[in-house]
Amino acid sequence: MNRWMQIAYEEALSGMRVNDGGPFGAVIVQNDQIISQTHNEVLRTNDPTAHAEINAIRAASQKLGRFDLSDCTLYTTCYPCPMCMGAILWAKIPIVYYGATEADATKGGFNDENFHAHIRNPQDAFDLRPLDLEKTRTLFDQWLEKSDRILY
Amino acid sequence: MNRWMQIAYEEALSGMRVNDGGPFGAVIVQNDQIISQTHNEVLRTNDPTAHAEINAIRAASQKLGRFDLSDCTLYTTCYPCPMCMGAILWAKIPIVYYGATEADATKGGFNDENFHAHIRNPQDAFDLRPLDLEKTRTLFDQWLEKSDRILY
Repeated sequence: MNRWMQIAYEEALSGMRVNDGGPFGAVIVQNDQIISQTHNEVLRTNDPTAHAEINAIRAASQKLGRFDLSDCTLYTTCYPCPMCMGAILWAKIPIVYYGATEADATKGGFNDENFHAHIRNPQDAFDLRPLDLEKTRTLFDQWLEKSDRILY
Repeated sequence: MNRWMQIAYEEALSGMRVNDGGPFGAVIVQNDQIISQTHNEVLRTNDPTAHAEINAIRAASQKLGRFDLSDCTLYTTCYPCPMCMGAILWAKIPIVYYGATEADATKGGFNDENFHAHIRNPQDAFDLRPLDLEKTRTLFDQWLEKSDRILY
């Protein structure tokens, strides 16, 4: 077994055993060194966003002091859900190794597979209601007028 | 302007002004009361996941002490990115009011629109590499054998 995936696997197992959350673990590696190793903590923290990958990205960005993790690689015990994929994109992580599949997660009772389908057709899956477009879009004009803005 | 969206708008503006992050704000409402009001903090915290909606969901789940926000409504100044949409699904928030569009975010220099396209075709957009499938999928067998497991 790959040594980083082995650590992600052990994270998943240890988190599940103490009821921190579901059976998911993640490791972020930079230059052959672990930057963060985490597991799902949705149950312990009551935070629905506390997936292993999100936790790993948050911990790595704190450790490295930057939101750009483009020199890092993520190892995760399961194919990332849409939330985690989005986080991977924002963090600019270029390579992701994953273990189990969406179908495995479905067998375990998790919604990842459905949620990937939902994200492909948000208008069918969500009750998304437009509101106050003209006023809120001015935020981007004000942003573009801001001379010290930093893009991320 | 809707009173909750007005608060989200003011959050966005105040966060942008102090360089906490991009021009995005969010409010979570339950029974006609604000549970959380937040803005983007990617720049201040160096956390690429610190979007207004993620921050609002995290704050609301901490305040209510539960990961299920199905009795809440989210107001956000811009159409949610895939990460935030995923978080909305996991939090089970049934109704989302949004202000500006993906196209407005693109004009502001943000990648939301591209990322939605990426998530629809992950195999093209990501370097996703399968690894150690047989071992990692056993995590779900161990999960299903766990008598005290809690689904979320």
